[in-house]
Amino acid sequence: MSYYNFEEGQNPEQADEHFMRLALNEAKKAYEAEEIPIGALVVSHGKIIGRGHNLTEQLNDVTAHAEMQAFTAAAQTLGGKYLKDCTLYVTIEPCVMCAGASYWTQISRIVFGAHEEKRGFTRIGQNLLHPKTLLKGGVLAEECGQLMTDFFKNKRK
Amino acid sequence: MSYYNFEEGQNPEQADEHFMRLALNEAKKAYEAEEIPIGALVVSHGKIIGRGHNLTEQLNDVTAHAEMQAFTAAAQTLGGKYLKDCTLYVTIEPCVMCAGASYWTQISRIVFGAHEEKRGFTRIGQNLLHPKTLLKGGVLAEECGQLMTDFFKNKRK
Repeated sequence: MSYYNFEEGQNPEQADEHFMRLALNEAKKAYEAEEIPIGALVVSHGKIIGRGHNLTEQLNDVTAHAEMQAFTAAAQTLGGKYLKDCTLYVTIEPCVMCAGASYWTQISRIVFGAHEEKRGFTRIGQNLLHPKTLLKGGVLAEECGQLMTDFFKNKRK
Repeated sequence: MSYYNFEEGQNPEQADEHFMRLALNEAKKAYEAEEIPIGALVVSHGKIIGRGHNLTEQLNDVTAHAEMQAFTAAAQTLGGKYLKDCTLYVTIEPCVMCAGASYWTQISRIVFGAHEEKRGFTRIGQNLLHPKTLLKGGVLAEECGQLMTDFFKNKRK
């Protein structure tokens, strides 16, 4: 478990960078397992209640995205399906499937790292999210994106 | 396992109705378990290779839609992530999450029963599907929709 105290003089931007760095650690686990390196956390009141990294190859399952696992884990932790007062941190902009899943969770906030030009959900429109969900992109974007670039560069070797 | 032989003088419409009726049986399992009654099958060359019904309440997981489970099961059966030469039969028009998942599977065809006015993915546009995926709606639509109507009528009692 990791706690983050918002009362100790740090601003929300610092909190977002803190959690995105932990999401990056999840992404690095995927990288090491030769999975597309994307990591995700769900945070509630400064506490991580769900985490995941991409496992589509290991599980032979296209639905095993980092976000999906983090949502499922968070719901188990809370004992309820809805992720109110929760934030999803994910290193790469979510795809349509994960944005659609976030709708059902009614999550309060989504913070992502790097934009995903081809398969990111914002090319469809933000109306995929629940009306209650706030969206912020670009947190540690360079580091999050670089991990993907490195991965695909090594794949082509 | 259930096989359906297309060579025996029956036309594709009859095959679609046959499998939709089996998807309806899955939906009825959800109904009996007090879950929103939606059922799904994945069929490859006349053979059911994955099935599922909505389990969001039992699993306390908003991602546990019938289609998601049928995709995961089908990929396990095939031993590969991609559902080429496969058809998804689902009693109700898929939501954005499930349409987004179908994109990643590259499934050949989606056949659904009743339209879903509020949360069906076609209100966003068919461009959510993979370019290889054909779409057909309205198979046994009345029966598929009636099961939902009955469910919500009983819930309100």
